[in-house]
Amino acid sequence: MSKLLREYQNDEQFEANVLLKEIDVRRTQQGKHYLAMLVADRSMEMRAMKWDVTEDELEAFEAGQVVHLKAIRQTYQGNPQLRVLEIRATTAGESADAKDFMQAAPVKRDDLEEEVSQLVFQITNGTWQRIVRFLLKKYHDEFFVFPAAKTNHHAFTGGLAYHSLSIAHLAEAVVKQYDNLNGSLLYAGAILHDLGKVIELSGPVATKYTIPGNLIGHIVLIDEQIVLAAHELNIDLNSEDMLVLRHTVLAHHGQLDYGSPVQPMIKEANILHQLDELDANIQTFDQALEQTTPGSFSSRQWALNNRMIYHPQNSEPRSED
Amino acid sequence: MSKLLREYQNDEQFEANVLLKEIDVRRTQQGKHYLAMLVADRSMEMRAMKWDVTEDELEAFEAGQVVHLKAIRQTYQGNPQLRVLEIRATTAGESADAKDFMQAAPVKRDDLEEEVSQLVFQITNGTWQRIVRFLLKKYHDEFFVFPAAKTNHHAFTGGLAYHSLSIAHLAEAVVKQYDNLNGSLLYAGAILHDLGKVIELSGPVATKYTIPGNLIGHIVLIDEQIVLAAHELNIDLNSEDMLVLRHTVLAHHGQLDYGSPVQPMIKEANILHQLDELDANIQTFDQALEQTTPGSFSSRQWALNNRMIYHPQNSEPRSED
Amino acid sequence: MSKLLREYQNDEQFEANVLLKEIDVRRTQQGKHYLAMLVADRSMEMRAMKWDVTEDELEAFEAGQVVHLKAIRQTYQGNPQLRVLEIRATTAGESADAKDFMQAAPVKRDDLEEEVSQLVFQITNGTWQRIVRFLLKKYHDEFFVFPAAKTNHHAFTGGLAYHSLSIAHLAEAVVKQYDNLNGSLLYAGAILHDLGKVIELSGPVATKYTIPGNLIGHIVLIDEQIVLAAHELNIDLNSEDMLVLRHTVLAHHGQLDYGSPVQPMIKEANILHQLDELDANIQTFDQALEQTTPGSFSSRQWALNNRMIYHPQNSEPRSED
Amino acid sequence: MSKLLREYQNDEQFEANVLLKEIDVRRTQQGKHYLAMLVADRSMEMRAMKWDVTEDELEAFEAGQVVHLKAIRQTYQGNPQLRVLEIRATTAGESADAKDFMQAAPVKRDDLEEEVSQLVFQITNGTWQRIVRFLLKKYHDEFFVFPAAKTNHHAFTGGLAYHSLSIAHLAEAVVKQYDNLNGSLLYAGAILHDLGKVIELSGPVATKYTIPGNLIGHIVLIDEQIVLAAHELNIDLNSEDMLVLRHTVLAHHGQLDYGSPVQPMIKEANILHQLDELDANIQTFDQALEQTTPGSFSSRQWALNNRMIYHPQNSEPRSED
Amino acid sequence: MSKLLREYQNDEQFEANVLLKEIDVRRTQQGKHYLAMLVADRSMEMRAMKWDVTEDELEAFEAGQVVHLKAIRQTYQGNPQLRVLEIRATTAGESADAKDFMQAAPVKRDDLEEEVSQLVFQITNGTWQRIVRFLLKKYHDEFFVFPAAKTNHHAFTGGLAYHSLSIAHLAEAVVKQYDNLNGSLLYAGAILHDLGKVIELSGPVATKYTIPGNLIGHIVLIDEQIVLAAHELNIDLNSEDMLVLRHTVLAHHGQLDYGSPVQPMIKEANILHQLDELDANIQTFDQALEQTTPGSFSSRQWALNNRMIYHPQNSEPRSED
Amino acid sequence: MSKLLREYQNDEQFEANVLLKEIDVRRTQQGKHYLAMLVADRSMEMRAMKWDVTEDELEAFEAGQVVHLKAIRQTYQGNPQLRVLEIRATTAGESADAKDFMQAAPVKRDDLEEEVSQLVFQITNGTWQRIVRFLLKKYHDEFFVFPAAKTNHHAFTGGLAYHSLSIAHLAEAVVKQYDNLNGSLLYAGAILHDLGKVIELSGPVATKYTIPGNLIGHIVLIDEQIVLAAHELNIDLNSEDMLVLRHTVLAHHGQLDYGSPVQPMIKEANILHQLDELDANIQTFDQALEQTTPGSFSSRQWALNNRMIYHPQNSEPRSED
Repeated sequence: MSKLLREYQNDEQFEANVLLKEIDVRRTQQGKHYLAMLVADRSMEMRAMKWDVTEDELEAFEAGQVVHLKAIRQTYQGNPQLRVLEIRATTAGESADAKDFMQAAPVKRDDLEEEVSQLVFQITNGTWQRIVRFLLKKYHDEFFVFPAAKTNHHAFTGGLAYHSLSIAHLAEAVVKQYDNLNGSLLYAGAILHDLGKVIELSGPVATKYTIPGNLIGHIVLIDEQIVLAAHELNIDLNSEDMLVLRHTVLAHHGQLDYGSPVQPMIKEANILHQLDELDANIQTFDQALEQTTPGSFSSRQWALNNRMIYHPQNSEPRSED
Repeated sequence: MSKLLREYQNDEQFEANVLLKEIDVRRTQQGKHYLAMLVADRSMEMRAMKWDVTEDELEAFEAGQVVHLKAIRQTYQGNPQLRVLEIRATTAGESADAKDFMQAAPVKRDDLEEEVSQLVFQITNGTWQRIVRFLLKKYHDEFFVFPAAKTNHHAFTGGLAYHSLSIAHLAEAVVKQYDNLNGSLLYAGAILHDLGKVIELSGPVATKYTIPGNLIGHIVLIDEQIVLAAHELNIDLNSEDMLVLRHTVLAHHGQLDYGSPVQPMIKEANILHQLDELDANIQTFDQALEQTTPGSFSSRQWALNNRMIYHPQNSEPRSED
Repeated sequence: MSKLLREYQNDEQFEANVLLKEIDVRRTQQGKHYLAMLVADRSMEMRAMKWDVTEDELEAFEAGQVVHLKAIRQTYQGNPQLRVLEIRATTAGESADAKDFMQAAPVKRDDLEEEVSQLVFQITNGTWQRIVRFLLKKYHDEFFVFPAAKTNHHAFTGGLAYHSLSIAHLAEAVVKQYDNLNGSLLYAGAILHDLGKVIELSGPVATKYTIPGNLIGHIVLIDEQIVLAAHELNIDLNSEDMLVLRHTVLAHHGQLDYGSPVQPMIKEANILHQLDELDANIQTFDQALEQTTPGSFSSRQWALNNRMIYHPQNSEPRSED
Repeated sequence: MSKLLREYQNDEQFEANVLLKEIDVRRTQQGKHYLAMLVADRSMEMRAMKWDVTEDELEAFEAGQVVHLKAIRQTYQGNPQLRVLEIRATTAGESADAKDFMQAAPVKRDDLEEEVSQLVFQITNGTWQRIVRFLLKKYHDEFFVFPAAKTNHHAFTGGLAYHSLSIAHLAEAVVKQYDNLNGSLLYAGAILHDLGKVIELSGPVATKYTIPGNLIGHIVLIDEQIVLAAHELNIDLNSEDMLVLRHTVLAHHGQLDYGSPVQPMIKEANILHQLDELDANIQTFDQALEQTTPGSFSSRQWALNNRMIYHPQNSEPRSED
Repeated sequence: MSKLLREYQNDEQFEANVLLKEIDVRRTQQGKHYLAMLVADRSMEMRAMKWDVTEDELEAFEAGQVVHLKAIRQTYQGNPQLRVLEIRATTAGESADAKDFMQAAPVKRDDLEEEVSQLVFQITNGTWQRIVRFLLKKYHDEFFVFPAAKTNHHAFTGGLAYHSLSIAHLAEAVVKQYDNLNGSLLYAGAILHDLGKVIELSGPVATKYTIPGNLIGHIVLIDEQIVLAAHELNIDLNSEDMLVLRHTVLAHHGQLDYGSPVQPMIKEANILHQLDELDANIQTFDQALEQTTPGSFSSRQWALNNRMIYHPQNSEPRSED
Repeated sequence: MSKLLREYQNDEQFEANVLLKEIDVRRTQQGKHYLAMLVADRSMEMRAMKWDVTEDELEAFEAGQVVHLKAIRQTYQGNPQLRVLEIRATTAGESADAKDFMQAAPVKRDDLEEEVSQLVFQITNGTWQRIVRFLLKKYHDEFFVFPAAKTNHHAFTGGLAYHSLSIAHLAEAVVKQYDNLNGSLLYAGAILHDLGKVIELSGPVATKYTIPGNLIGHIVLIDEQIVLAAHELNIDLNSEDMLVLRHTVLAHHGQLDYGSPVQPMIKEANILHQLDELDANIQTFDQALEQTTPGSFSSRQWALNNRMIYHPQNSEPRSED
């Protein structure tokens, strides 16, 4: 069995099939062509360079394709990088299904679907449940396949559903602890808040911002879908239920300068925003910790206001045996 | 003929009918009731106080009503204020139509309607013209009656249409001066950009923010209407025309922290934002200048980042003749 | 039985014993003395004014005392206020114990103590458990009696312990949901993070900032206590356990400009900060919601970046049954 | 006829004369010399590199010179760049006049001069007209030749006069639309506001900031010239006319942190600031749009707060034929 | 001998002559006239109110006049305030010279003049010395009489010269301590940096901002005078000496958003800015400390970013003897 | 005698012993190993590259070691850089003591010690003197050897003591000039304020932030030491002397967002902050001026808010003789 990308040692030479996530034909400053690639399997993704390129190779490959590499793992500016010696398309018999090479949520899709399905039952407000059901049906496949972001937090296949469920589970704990909380609103908000990303982003492979993503943004894109759904379902757009749901989704970035057109003015909207941030931060910390030796600091993390983070060494979670 | 509010001298006692824009029953710190009012006629609005109040008077009046006052004009903390000696409902024969007492746009409604009608013809892009026609029809009366703001710029009857047309006229000059400008987009944007205020605000008298106004805001409220209009008119919501129009309207506050969920990324969207600001600033300056003696400075203007403004004295616009 | 302050109607006259939380002798602008007071019972606190004051009354009362009032409940600038007709010290037989008139955490002290005691067992890291035990012992009474803030969130007797436990309970839910979390650190941080407030604030009645509170602040004040405790317990101050614990406490305000000398660089420190904010926000929302009629907006809330908040009306938490 | 720089295809090899705008002798990281150049003709400017350099070539050329190149057009990091194979001085008979290779305002200098001349007549305030005439005479050639900026908006020969006139034309439209505007002040401000750039910048070729440009800045540099002009012309420096004119020029950046020592407190000063920004933004958009394929987004634009901009594709300005 | 204002006890009634610094006829909310005054002698200034006013008294007094009061010292909102029982003009034989009632620099004018005179000799750069002499001559009296600010730091007669000399003395210490410092530039900067305040402010009594003060500001006003002085003295305006001196003065607020059109780019300009801030801060602290009981905190100080300050109690400067 | 690094010309080849401050094995983008070093002698430090590296050389050297180089001085991106031809360990007889190659404070250590010793006598407050003596004894060697920063101001051996003394000397001048200043507090603050850097930084060679440096920071690290010292010396931690001293040290960064947990609320704390900034700025200017040709501007200085600075040319400090 071929090893996973994460398992190769520095300076180790190997052959393997990988998914081509990005491929760019570039020139060195001196004018020679080379291939700058981002390759991945389900363990991680890595930059890869092929320096001497034939005319044929310049146009032979495209993002989304599975290819076969002969390469050496090296380190460039602190990060692992492949020096590619040979690259070719996969041949019959070799695994060539992109899905087998994508990082995925730590929970299986079937389980995600089951959990979502149960969560919807907990939305006891009829209006909100109908809207959620309508949009989950409309964007069913995308919801379970899209990442929650282009890079950083939950940037893996299924990341969107996984992130939404994490928030919903935190919300359940909050509802249990505090009186007078509207759980239905939190659960509906958890599912809908980032659903606009299925329009904002291009998909799970070679993820880019779409034109509507840049010009409108996922917050207003999902608001549009909620409005159209209500229209379709003959729900009164002026009802408080609709205003409260839309506000909760619109305000989930918490501040105007993070792109929400309104600040959270409803308690549950504020909680949704804070749980969203909490889950995203934990995910960002985990990704950075994975690449940081215990007892040392990471590089600066853009998604954490440029902080370095520390990976504790001796301070074990549990001292018991 | 009764004089207008603007025409009374300090310490002058008079009787007149005025529109009650706000009325509040309050207590002095010592616990006595008094009436704190905002009254207006078509020349201006003014604070008014009635200190000794009978039980009957406490509940006799409400905002939006025309009343008859006996009062003295005084100055309190630099601003004119009425000390009300007597207040009663109007009697038969006295003018009691609120509309006669409201400040209004300097252009008559018929003329505003005519100008808007001609402007729509200049929107040569079919998609945008249909959307604009649809929404102008849906909110026809509100568009020509609502103010453009609760206070400050264009806070008078018809202010919304007047402000929108001012921007459109500036846009025509810009289109004439620069090549490659999409006039249709500017004109459609001029009409639609603040149309959400007919939902955000309660109306021309005793203007307040509505619940949807606070929870959703006029920017997303009009986006919702554009989306529904397109749906109704069978216009493809994913067409570039729709994305570009919505972006232009969504971005018109120019910056995220002023409430736009996206920054202007299209040239015409940026121009619309700048013309909106230009027209609003001119109106704010004009209102402050009216209350500032030539050769002196105004009080600090909240709507101009707390600047004082200066009313020049000798520097006449034109020295000729 | 006397009614509670919260139960009186506007304009209702009554007699009752109340706790004097603040009392100030002031002069009106015209130079007459009056008493400006803040009074409370366990249902709420309220401003109270006595306008005609005898020489004797000027010096007869002090904050912290229980007094007997004859007063009328009125409204001043939107807030309830008492107009005091008579004030006297309590007489024998009247309840005069300040503790009976203070707002308190919704959980009884015994239960708080029991919960804290169980929480300490969950701190399986020996170093942290010893530090926590040492400081809980040193400040035992203060921890269960102090408020968590001078005003706003958890500003009631026992608020500090109640707030710390709320965070700990949220932390338990987070530990259950995510892998690789150091629960011990979260629980120790939950108990210690605000413990410096027992030095920063003067106590549960007539709470003020102390001189060390202003000059050093609760964050560094508790860091000092942690350092002294470690010294006393012969724990190595340079061990990673100590650095990690101190960092977690020092960073709990999340940002330098909120007074933390370091930003959270450890995952659990970041989570503690977010849970602290979540719990404080929920409490602030709840206090504001209590004073806001369903279907309307509150006044601007200083503790929520000056936002107004909305009290939903029809959107009930649960629609079933 | 040689083609223009804009007209070469990627990978096309050609010979042409170009203007050397910048030339730097640098070393590769490995220590070999190369020439890093910025070359231009009147269609555009482009980076150019010569990798293998003889000793002679190291010192043979200087910025401002016209040279003959044999080169291949390539793309480096998304931008066009020339790989220079041969470079030599022009020989007799080849066009070697730098002026033939500079980008220029889209209006001919004669026309610019004519328009400025007519504009001055519209300044009916005698004081301002005399100051404007005096300074236009003093800096006549520079005004019509300098760019309006080192890079970005109007960074071409004649850009300063062109930008000033654009603002003046917009101002005429504004004066026509609004009552009570002091056109003289707007026109005088349009001509003078950026005139300090003829001292702040070094000239139309190889434009750099001068020492006075950096230490004093164009805003105060032109204020100095206005003061000296008034002194020369025996105009009372304390007259309101002078204060108003100087304020208008000093405030034209609109905000202290953009380098204006005062915020606009006069209506016309505020308008001048807004028209300045409008014209500069339009120019910046146009330059970015030229380099952006319809239907796609530009790179981030420093001069637009780091926004990407979008070049619409189908949304034509006019649909009629 | 009459006591000084600072010496009266709370509730003490007295008669004294005082300087009327401001006088305003206002109305109470109920519409009655009263006089709101700011009075002073050389020990301090104090708010003063006269509540029952005759028609005659309304127009009898003006700012700048010395008047005779019968009054009671009271406390209003934490600050001392006079309740005026009687007010009349001074009669023959009573001291009526405003100068006798103004707070003044702690150094006598003759000594200030002598110190300035010696300082000028230390400006060994001929250009700068000539400019300084020229402007000190032009504004001689104002320099020694004006305050350095309208309120807050050095807001007393002679404050401008006193503040300038304090900076110069600090600069001498800095020059002694560090190598390679241009003392001439620091001393010239110390004298000139705030000299524009003699134009920006109206004078030592009833100090207000002038129109040029508001429209141009003291920084550019003194730059104008430096330019005109150089012109008069035939000094080359383009010489480095002139650029460096002007830069030093223009940059002395240290940051664009504090009103300097350029940031300090020259070492001595940066030092001047820091010494200016140091001296102003010390003065602001001293004024606040005077009104703060040892062992307690002041109210929030606007001029210190709204900080409270602490007046230490036991921590004496010197423990010896 | 070998020349100093500062003395070599561009393109000059030489052999010399230098201190290896940093050494990194990196790969070129094409995958070849090279050595990226920072080398220094007592005149300056410089980047150095060795491109062709043998296997042996990859692991032969480490930071802190003195090595012998054969190298050519070149310029890379505007900065001097060495191209290393040969590198080897020093041999017997060659100077190999790192101390001989480190930049050092301009004052000899013996003199620094003597000055500090005298300064301590000027701390007449017994509490503060005892604390200072205790900590100077505990960290005696580090105080006189550590730099005051990793890079920028006073980043040389002995920089910490030198910087502390510079502040103390400025403080003496301030104490002499102003009344009522607590010199003891300023001198104690001068010595202690940055003493935490001996824990925050790793040492004088190859200076890095330590783990406590990153997680706690030098401000709280020294506060901890002050608290432990007081404990050891039986000084009452709640005495005003202790609060005032700790506040002064904690507040010395002047603002929360520069890492001080409290703003300066005591006059001397504010002065200490300003003198700290003054001394650091002068040092930063001096370092930048050294690398800037007279009559030109430096590159942007990160430590001065990204300002360029100007090195004046003709404006000599003294014109005499």
